[in-house]
Amino acid sequence: MIAILKHGTTPDQTSHLVEWLKTMNLDVHISQGQEVTILGLIGDTSRVDMELLNSLEIVETVKRVSEPFKQANRKFHPKDSVIEAGGSKIGGGYFGLIAGPCSVESEEQIIQVAQAVKEAGANFLRGGAFKPRTSPYAFQGMGGEGIKLLLKAKEATGLPIVTELMNINTLDLFNDVDVIQVGARNMQNFDLLKELGKTKKPILLKRGLANTLQELLMSAEYIMSEGNENVILCERGIRTFETYTRNTLDLSAVPVLHELSHLPVVIDPSHATGKSRLVASMAYASAACGADGLMIEVHNDPEHALCDGAQSLTPSQFAEVSRKVQQLREVMV
Amino acid sequence: MIAILKHGTTPDQTSHLVEWLKTMNLDVHISQGQEVTILGLIGDTSRVDMELLNSLEIVETVKRVSEPFKQANRKFHPKDSVIEAGGSKIGGGYFGLIAGPCSVESEEQIIQVAQAVKEAGANFLRGGAFKPRTSPYAFQGMGGEGIKLLLKAKEATGLPIVTELMNINTLDLFNDVDVIQVGARNMQNFDLLKELGKTKKPILLKRGLANTLQELLMSAEYIMSEGNENVILCERGIRTFETYTRNTLDLSAVPVLHELSHLPVVIDPSHATGKSRLVASMAYASAACGADGLMIEVHNDPEHALCDGAQSLTPSQFAEVSRKVQQLREVMV
Amino acid sequence: MIAILKHGTTPDQTSHLVEWLKTMNLDVHISQGQEVTILGLIGDTSRVDMELLNSLEIVETVKRVSEPFKQANRKFHPKDSVIEAGGSKIGGGYFGLIAGPCSVESEEQIIQVAQAVKEAGANFLRGGAFKPRTSPYAFQGMGGEGIKLLLKAKEATGLPIVTELMNINTLDLFNDVDVIQVGARNMQNFDLLKELGKTKKPILLKRGLANTLQELLMSAEYIMSEGNENVILCERGIRTFETYTRNTLDLSAVPVLHELSHLPVVIDPSHATGKSRLVASMAYASAACGADGLMIEVHNDPEHALCDGAQSLTPSQFAEVSRKVQQLREVMV
Amino acid sequence: MIAILKHGTTPDQTSHLVEWLKTMNLDVHISQGQEVTILGLIGDTSRVDMELLNSLEIVETVKRVSEPFKQANRKFHPKDSVIEAGGSKIGGGYFGLIAGPCSVESEEQIIQVAQAVKEAGANFLRGGAFKPRTSPYAFQGMGGEGIKLLLKAKEATGLPIVTELMNINTLDLFNDVDVIQVGARNMQNFDLLKELGKTKKPILLKRGLANTLQELLMSAEYIMSEGNENVILCERGIRTFETYTRNTLDLSAVPVLHELSHLPVVIDPSHATGKSRLVASMAYASAACGADGLMIEVHNDPEHALCDGAQSLTPSQFAEVSRKVQQLREVMV
Repeated sequence: MIAILKHGTTPDQTSHLVEWLKTMNLDVHISQGQEVTILGLIGDTSRVDMELLNSLEIVETVKRVSEPFKQANRKFHPKDSVIEAGGSKIGGGYFGLIAGPCSVESEEQIIQVAQAVKEAGANFLRGGAFKPRTSPYAFQGMGGEGIKLLLKAKEATGLPIVTELMNINTLDLFNDVDVIQVGARNMQNFDLLKELGKTKKPILLKRGLANTLQELLMSAEYIMSEGNENVILCERGIRTFETYTRNTLDLSAVPVLHELSHLPVVIDPSHATGKSRLVASMAYASAACGADGLMIEVHNDPEHALCDGAQSLTPSQFAEVSRKVQQLREVMV
Repeated sequence: MIAILKHGTTPDQTSHLVEWLKTMNLDVHISQGQEVTILGLIGDTSRVDMELLNSLEIVETVKRVSEPFKQANRKFHPKDSVIEAGGSKIGGGYFGLIAGPCSVESEEQIIQVAQAVKEAGANFLRGGAFKPRTSPYAFQGMGGEGIKLLLKAKEATGLPIVTELMNINTLDLFNDVDVIQVGARNMQNFDLLKELGKTKKPILLKRGLANTLQELLMSAEYIMSEGNENVILCERGIRTFETYTRNTLDLSAVPVLHELSHLPVVIDPSHATGKSRLVASMAYASAACGADGLMIEVHNDPEHALCDGAQSLTPSQFAEVSRKVQQLREVMV
Repeated sequence: MIAILKHGTTPDQTSHLVEWLKTMNLDVHISQGQEVTILGLIGDTSRVDMELLNSLEIVETVKRVSEPFKQANRKFHPKDSVIEAGGSKIGGGYFGLIAGPCSVESEEQIIQVAQAVKEAGANFLRGGAFKPRTSPYAFQGMGGEGIKLLLKAKEATGLPIVTELMNINTLDLFNDVDVIQVGARNMQNFDLLKELGKTKKPILLKRGLANTLQELLMSAEYIMSEGNENVILCERGIRTFETYTRNTLDLSAVPVLHELSHLPVVIDPSHATGKSRLVASMAYASAACGADGLMIEVHNDPEHALCDGAQSLTPSQFAEVSRKVQQLREVMV
Repeated sequence: MIAILKHGTTPDQTSHLVEWLKTMNLDVHISQGQEVTILGLIGDTSRVDMELLNSLEIVETVKRVSEPFKQANRKFHPKDSVIEAGGSKIGGGYFGLIAGPCSVESEEQIIQVAQAVKEAGANFLRGGAFKPRTSPYAFQGMGGEGIKLLLKAKEATGLPIVTELMNINTLDLFNDVDVIQVGARNMQNFDLLKELGKTKKPILLKRGLANTLQELLMSAEYIMSEGNENVILCERGIRTFETYTRNTLDLSAVPVLHELSHLPVVIDPSHATGKSRLVASMAYASAACGADGLMIEVHNDPEHALCDGAQSLTPSQFAEVSRKVQQLREVMV
């Protein structure tokens, strides 16, 4: 870590700061320039509060030379991670096609969708049992009952299950779930991340609405630092001023995360755009820029024929997306 | 709630949608215009998923006529709420001046700061025991031990205590805490909010980094819908493209929240700006636009003389802020 | 246009508003509902100031039923526009591959790059002569001299030229330029747009840093309303909180703009990402989601071998991008 | 300027870069550390393209030690600038209270408003003659005719005039205007800024929708570098995700701009909030945090009694704001 001190910093102030840094078990290498003084901090700087340091009156700027994440860092783990769950794989050349309904509603529904998406090429089944809802008065999902229905669909199709956990106290219900999803709103629920780090379950970690890619990797680090290396990163759109789409899908996250980390990167075009008619093109773009997987909402409810503008695809639309994604991936090999 | 259907919607599609809406126990009043069809939804629309409705192919737009929050809504509770905690009050003309260090570090530190801020006019003591940190390797606060020290400072000064809870499983440690803070990153940790709603503790609810004011009120509603009406709202800066300040303080939150809700609104200029030299002017602005309180970081550590550029004020700077805030409030009466 | 009036609006207020709307030559159709009153405004509502209307105390919400842009609107022009310039075409199945250096620096440089990109498959040459620079002290481009060099490169290679105009008073210098670029910072320089609307030149209109897609289409409308229908839209990244990339490339702009408008859509991954190592993957994503063209920075300066982290590709990197884009486009047919 | 090179940069690459920097007339001081190499660039670094340098593969980070703006910089001009126009002053303790209608509509209207705001304490009259409008079909203002009416109001009241110029080719019409306004959308219309720099007219420069404070100061620098030092900075709200207010007023701009620059800072709460009922509280906040002036929309049209929710205040509301602003300023002395 490098700290550049302001022009005009007195020797006293400098030595004061150096003493303080040394109390954190850092070696400090001082380089006195004409305009500025530069401190090189050597040692385990991951414990240094960069924001605090940066805010000191005498500090011009602070720059990490090494990233603050270690276990998630490609520098220390150059090979792509392959995450295995329930017989399917994501990362390092394996493509995870995760599909299913927004919410689990009934046994019939979830089994029908599971069969349809499996036939179309999906290798994971998604479905919401616990639903994070902005309003306390909205339907909050079927809860534990929903997980049981997902497991029946798994039994019927062999597809491993991906579903969201919102509260660590419900962890027992997820024993047979294959991938636990952490939603965007919980990306910085650090206590939850630490607890999930103590399990060995694959975790699908969604980027928060307004979180940087580095913050996403730091949240992955929370899980990994507790011993669980099975983390899948998921970009699902960020909050911007544009209102035509629900969120703005940040596809540059794919090459950037691949550069910084060995963890697989999955894209969720359904939540990002909020409109089913935009899902296919964003799925194709994701495949072309090297994403390791896609998470797509598919419904089978004939009632929903009415709402084909919503974010879910029909099974036949999904089959078409699956087919073209496969073709695009062949070009990109 | 009003739903406007697109030009070209067939009668079949309309009646299909109307049937579906009626399954949610809503009365639907249809007004067939020349260009569009308008549905008036009457009944408890707080359960309607507005986003889903909006995303339907045949729907042009959806608009709530009534806000989705009820208990937090000024319409149903015109008088300002006054929140009482440990003998101090916030809201309805009572100003909450909450001050203290970023983190509790030692008994001596917290008692000294407590005495200093009390003398300067503070009526609440803040201090972090559990600290949300982006990095798993950074200091995470003293935890339960920190709360004990805060309680000693309360004993010494009589100041009620405000401190953050990050994990509902630590609730027992907060029995003697006067106001429980929910941090910005947990503003949409809905399970946490519900659990806090089951207590009677005053909750200081911070706005998330990228959450709208309506979302903040919906999170307050989560707490209130479980029976706890003691919610204090806190604006602490939002995330924007500007990088000179840590966040962008959105002071229009004060009149907007006062218009929409009866709950008190507190401003945290320390976290919003991230720079101590900007805290005073933002505190004055807050007082002038009608905030019900301020939450300000104050340190007493002579070591920190070095870092008076950080976000904490010295006790004497705080005393000056307190004095001028008082004068400004007198003008605004 | 639909205006919904608030519950509690008096008949007097309503009739007052209706009178005012009629002075704008609108027919007003009133529908009195139980909860609200709805006004249907019929006639040329493109002149109505929606923001003003929306801000009236008695107005709950205003919604356009028809988009405020007409000439750019796909509804009135269902077929894709094909823009022709100097023998090359963009839109309606024709792919515009626009490549060249950030700035024109010398005759040798621009001709060498032009030859290299032509060989690699480009069908347009770009190069900056007038450069918008944040600092008045930075190099502002070669100006008119730069345009002359671009025209020499055109002579040498046959490639049509795309270059930016910043000041309408320099229009004469652009007589032989094939496509005039309007930069992001001038997207809402309405007087400039109107003047360009009076020419017949193809205009490449870049989206502003923080402008919505609808605002981009309204700026296209400024050009088209003066009689120039040759507008090419360009997404080049928007400003968000993420700092790893220079801007955030919003690729959903491609399907959204295609849905709303018949104009071709070009992506500039070089400016969007600011990093050459991210350009290829974003170019592939653009091709896969249906963009009508790409605008890519290519340099030939061996000095720049040093800076292959900058936003420009080398000619051989560009050739590889061109080849794969072609393959991806074949899949997407 | 400091450039930190990445670990692993070869001596060849370093010397290559140093040679290139020297071609820009910079002295380069090399400091070879254990982890990194640091280059200190000495000389006129305002011409260096920081973004280009930053994007080089071998560069870890670049940091200006001196700000890129000079004439606007408080370091070189510690005393507050006082801008004088038509007998009124702004800055250095003088408060500019600029009020008037959104658009000039008629002689009667503008004179009536001018008299009303003068009586209430305004010392400048504002009014739009050329109006930047998102839609080419919307009313674009009265143009030159509007300026003539403003001058009649000036004659009648003695109030100096502030009005917006959108096109440098209309400059002649502004000969008797006292302060020329540059709107948010033209903040980076660099050619316009340079031309205004050649006049001696006071310029009120509005911050762009998504521009940083440093970019605002660089735009001021464009004007000043041509010889016109009479620049007034204006914060008018920035674009964020929040939709309740039209823009998000960034009041921390006041202390930040005062820290960085000697130029006066004016706040426009009318455009920032878009709602008249929020204008007063944001005006009070502005006064309390040290703004040098306010720009407030006031209408006198009885027709508009209807729309007191719009962004304009009535004359009597304005008089109340003026009175309290005065009181708050007395506290802050």
